[in-house]
Amino acid sequence: MTVKTRMLVALAFVAGATLAMLLSTGGGGDVAPTHAAVGGNALDDIIQKRGLTPDEAEAALKTFVPPGKFDDFVMFTSGGHRGSILLYGIPSMRMLKEIPVYAADSWQGWGQGEAGSEEVLAKGSFGTGLPTQTWGDLHHPQLSLTNGKYDGEWVIGTDKSAGRVAIISLRDFKTKSIFKIPNTDSDHHGLFTDNSEYIIVSTFFPRPYDSPNEYAPIEDYKTKYKGMVSFLRFDREHGRIVPAESFQIELPPYFQDLSIAGRGPSDGYFFINSMNVEMATGGDLEGKPPMEIGASQREMDYLHVIDWKKAAEVAKDPAKAKVINGMKVISLPTAVAERLIYFVPESKSPHGVDLVPGGEYVIVSGKLDPHVTAYSAEKIKKAIADQNFEGKDDFGVPVLKYDACVEAHIPTGLGPLHSVFDNQGNGYTSCFLDSTVVKWTIGPPYNPPEKAWKAVDKVSVHYNIGHLQAPGSNTRKPWGKYVVALNKWSVDRFPPLGPLHPQNLQLIDVSGPQMKLLSDTPTIGEPHNSMIVPVEILQPWTTYPETGWDAVKMQKSEHATQQGQESIKRDGNTVTVNGTVVRSHYKPDIVRVKEGDRVIFNWTNVETARDATHGFGLHGYNINLSIDPGATERAELVATRPGVYPYYCTEFCSALHMEFTGWLLVEPKKKG
Amino acid sequence: MTVKTRMLVALAFVAGATLAMLLSTGGGGDVAPTHAAVGGNALDDIIQKRGLTPDEAEAALKTFVPPGKFDDFVMFTSGGHRGSILLYGIPSMRMLKEIPVYAADSWQGWGQGEAGSEEVLAKGSFGTGLPTQTWGDLHHPQLSLTNGKYDGEWVIGTDKSAGRVAIISLRDFKTKSIFKIPNTDSDHHGLFTDNSEYIIVSTFFPRPYDSPNEYAPIEDYKTKYKGMVSFLRFDREHGRIVPAESFQIELPPYFQDLSIAGRGPSDGYFFINSMNVEMATGGDLEGKPPMEIGASQREMDYLHVIDWKKAAEVAKDPAKAKVINGMKVISLPTAVAERLIYFVPESKSPHGVDLVPGGEYVIVSGKLDPHVTAYSAEKIKKAIADQNFEGKDDFGVPVLKYDACVEAHIPTGLGPLHSVFDNQGNGYTSCFLDSTVVKWTIGPPYNPPEKAWKAVDKVSVHYNIGHLQAPGSNTRKPWGKYVVALNKWSVDRFPPLGPLHPQNLQLIDVSGPQMKLLSDTPTIGEPHNSMIVPVEILQPWTTYPETGWDAVKMQKSEHATQQGQESIKRDGNTVTVNGTVVRSHYKPDIVRVKEGDRVIFNWTNVETARDATHGFGLHGYNINLSIDPGATERAELVATRPGVYPYYCTEFCSALHMEFTGWLLVEPKKKG
Repeated sequence: MTVKTRMLVALAFVAGATLAMLLSTGGGGDVAPTHAAVGGNALDDIIQKRGLTPDEAEAALKTFVPPGKFDDFVMFTSGGHRGSILLYGIPSMRMLKEIPVYAADSWQGWGQGEAGSEEVLAKGSFGTGLPTQTWGDLHHPQLSLTNGKYDGEWVIGTDKSAGRVAIISLRDFKTKSIFKIPNTDSDHHGLFTDNSEYIIVSTFFPRPYDSPNEYAPIEDYKTKYKGMVSFLRFDREHGRIVPAESFQIELPPYFQDLSIAGRGPSDGYFFINSMNVEMATGGDLEGKPPMEIGASQREMDYLHVIDWKKAAEVAKDPAKAKVINGMKVISLPTAVAERLIYFVPESKSPHGVDLVPGGEYVIVSGKLDPHVTAYSAEKIKKAIADQNFEGKDDFGVPVLKYDACVEAHIPTGLGPLHSVFDNQGNGYTSCFLDSTVVKWTIGPPYNPPEKAWKAVDKVSVHYNIGHLQAPGSNTRKPWGKYVVALNKWSVDRFPPLGPLHPQNLQLIDVSGPQMKLLSDTPTIGEPHNSMIVPVEILQPWTTYPETGWDAVKMQKSEHATQQGQESIKRDGNTVTVNGTVVRSHYKPDIVRVKEGDRVIFNWTNVETARDATHGFGLHGYNINLSIDPGATERAELVATRPGVYPYYCTEFCSALHMEFTGWLLVEPKKKG
Repeated sequence: MTVKTRMLVALAFVAGATLAMLLSTGGGGDVAPTHAAVGGNALDDIIQKRGLTPDEAEAALKTFVPPGKFDDFVMFTSGGHRGSILLYGIPSMRMLKEIPVYAADSWQGWGQGEAGSEEVLAKGSFGTGLPTQTWGDLHHPQLSLTNGKYDGEWVIGTDKSAGRVAIISLRDFKTKSIFKIPNTDSDHHGLFTDNSEYIIVSTFFPRPYDSPNEYAPIEDYKTKYKGMVSFLRFDREHGRIVPAESFQIELPPYFQDLSIAGRGPSDGYFFINSMNVEMATGGDLEGKPPMEIGASQREMDYLHVIDWKKAAEVAKDPAKAKVINGMKVISLPTAVAERLIYFVPESKSPHGVDLVPGGEYVIVSGKLDPHVTAYSAEKIKKAIADQNFEGKDDFGVPVLKYDACVEAHIPTGLGPLHSVFDNQGNGYTSCFLDSTVVKWTIGPPYNPPEKAWKAVDKVSVHYNIGHLQAPGSNTRKPWGKYVVALNKWSVDRFPPLGPLHPQNLQLIDVSGPQMKLLSDTPTIGEPHNSMIVPVEILQPWTTYPETGWDAVKMQKSEHATQQGQESIKRDGNTVTVNGTVVRSHYKPDIVRVKEGDRVIFNWTNVETARDATHGFGLHGYNINLSIDPGATERAELVATRPGVYPYYCTEFCSALHMEFTGWLLVEPKKKG
């Protein structure tokens, strides 16, 4: 029997008896009402068989997102030193995407020979004398804001290991630029102002940025090392930083950490936590205490209060803001003299500084103090107006009287770190040492005074919670419903799979009076913080708006090729391939060059169908492109070694995907 | 009120009224029996509120794994051109881990300045004239076998883009070696023999491996380009390939694709699918048909049948196996003369070749033929014994008579690709064009003849399924219960998040007479195939067995440092730091070097607590180490640029993690 005969027989069979049989057994009926058919006990049978408790059965039903349906929220979570941003759906907690930012991702063609992305990574590195950075430590994804609310346009993430800010479009979820911040080599955190006018970034590690060679002995730490806060003007149209419209303010050499921009009553102010006001520098092999001891000597650190709108005006005056390495820098003495900066004592070694939705209170947790502290924006402003100081720090910065600024202390238990807010007037604080999330009531106008600032519920988390997050927290519009605990250790919560354990994202239902733990989710990367947005706020492209799109420049590529216009052109030793990809072939599928030639590939995916991404994996030359529908991607190589180098579509696309191949033929140089 | 006073007050408060209140509200009670308390309708209320169908509610309860409980199975899934292996839990489909293999992962310190991993990547590359490969295309994770069953010791993955095999230990889930296979630059697939004696790998793209410069014009394709199958001796103790005990057999220049090693009646034989027996080479810009057309002209391709145990004997004879580039190679004429290789026609452009649990039948799907074909091992052996040929191919390989080898055709519908097996005598085939999984009955002894080889159920999948997988399929011990469909396109199944769509893993319940779709899971990377193993078969380490462990060498490191023995030693221009890390400091935390010095860091994590991983992120020099409990990790740099370079723990570890920092001080060279 030949294949053709068998095919005919089979088709008849499929169309006849088999098909009827399959249909009669409900084959393919993934929404068939079997529950009704077998009676109402089907669910109870499953619950019993699987040994689920009533709470667990509830959690199952609350978190399941049926096949083909969408999650309600998307959580943008940092990948930490994986250098990426991870997207999870809520309530299913399925990982929906990973956006490569500071590190390469060969699957997505990011930094793996694709010219545009490699230019972004190279430009965003330290420069002379140091290698292109191929990792970063991204802690705090921040979504762009319009009127203090998520607008679904951009997400940024700074790099603790390098002092950089990366800007990612939420049209195609790709990184558009990485800006290496001058005069600073470290930033734990950066965020948008309420209308995304600026991205504000403070240093974590101080550095001797204005010393010769940017070097000073550690013994000169107090005099030569300096902190910095950068106000980076954001070009919302292009996803770029505009250095000429940006400025910096020098800070004392404390570790400036998390921060928040004011709104409402706190509008125009910027608040930064600090650590290590002791200015300890370690030296444990040299007979000094290690940093963890040295930096924990004093009772209080300083919450920095910066009048950034006034600072923006001061920065325009060349007499007050010296240009250093292309950035206007307001020196610390000038900042003090211009009344741009104040301190307020805060419980030592704080992690979080957060802002209630309307901007009335700044919430700080000192991790060694078993409360969170609520500062009143009005009281801070009054203390500034009254010049109500309790002294100055070593650098002459006025310290506002603590009691004049504080509104309340909320007892939370041990190790409070970060706070988030819902839409019902509640705050939620992560407690590291207790491994809990504590729910408490915000003061007026969110709750009447008699119900304000009280801890009202607590739930255990597993284990070592760091940040926590809630939809729209730290914006003008929180949504409530869920809190996600981002736990640093998982220990025994997941099957052991080697010494490196995942972190644990725990979803908590906060829609009722009591919090309920719903699910545990192991993660990859090191999630520090996240932002949660309703899925409908995102308005991405599903294919590119025009065939031949340059994903980095967000415009039609100058290297785009139309179908029928494919070519291979030689100019001296440079061979340029202008090709197209479409199911299921490259055109051209043979490229003939000579050893030593420079070869440029410009591939345009002429598909317009959603999901019709193709790859360009080239043997030997360490290149893989991911060419989304409509995109033009570029790669370049020097044909250093003769031989035969197949290329092929790395993204399974069609029935004839396996045949989607081509050849780069590198002819050897003639000997002698 | 000072912090200390407030702390005392707060502690009293927490210990008293607040705690009582919290307890009385059920705070922290994540297993409290609220369902019972609120009556039996709680679940129905949730089902109604969330609009779940009865099937969806069942799926929710069947797939939910409660907080702190473990999944039943672990699925090892390829990351494709992401170069990794991803681990998912079944039935929750939570991603449990990603194992970096061919590409760097800065989170795990793989290939990001860590010396051991960078040596693995460099050694596993093409060598002279080509860059170190920092990506790979890993399609087929394969778990090691003992007596044809999973033993939980090793997993391997080959690289379609480079002809390599990577070996990963399931003790620590880390890559131990990457072997660049001589005489082959491409392998779609590689697998273990039944006792993991060999890893067998066949080429996908043929190449002119024995031509000068390994180059030949594409016009000489038929005469100079050659396929290859490699039998790589596996050193089970060390996770290495032993080239001296390995051998290769030359094949015609077809595209050799997936393969399977026999057992039971098929023991000693190895079966390889092939495509493009047309030997098309494309040339679409040169006026020839593209590959997708050229490679689909003939009605049949050839299933390769190789007597590998006999070949292993032949390879020992230097007269019959010439050593080329360090490998014994049996030429194709020798293989034919020694009766090592036969062909059987197979439906053109096949994807899968699979083996039923006992080894009686080889199952092949030609994707343009709407059946799967079952070949009988006994019939193939008889045809070989009888020399029952229908001819020879262009290279003299005898072609066994098709009808003499075939046992059955099972009609499945359009585009059948791959087949897997359960423990109830059933096969499941993925159909790409129909987007279905079809269940069918295996022949005797699995089912009586009258019930054999019949399609009995079908379920729709979304969309473009490639592989599918079931626990223990293609081994002697399948477990049944679930099938996972690995779908290439997701199109509209998940919230749109840019032009690059995830693939879709669909979990199907196959425990009953009818298959039921349970859930959709979006993925990262490009999953091609997977292996599913019961979680209890894995016996990993949760910390290293000895402090100072070298993860690559799997033994105590020569660079390990004991606590109290930390040192910084200078030898000429080389500065070696032998340090320890422990919550929450580095020792040393200050390292002073001079511009131009070579600096070596050897860090030992002296922790013995599970999950106490620390990082070493160094600014500027592009290094991040992940130092698991007990591990010693190494990094090396040349201090090319003077300045101040903080280092810090990148893996959040403790309350004082933020203070876990140090300084590399690079003093400038004296001028003049």
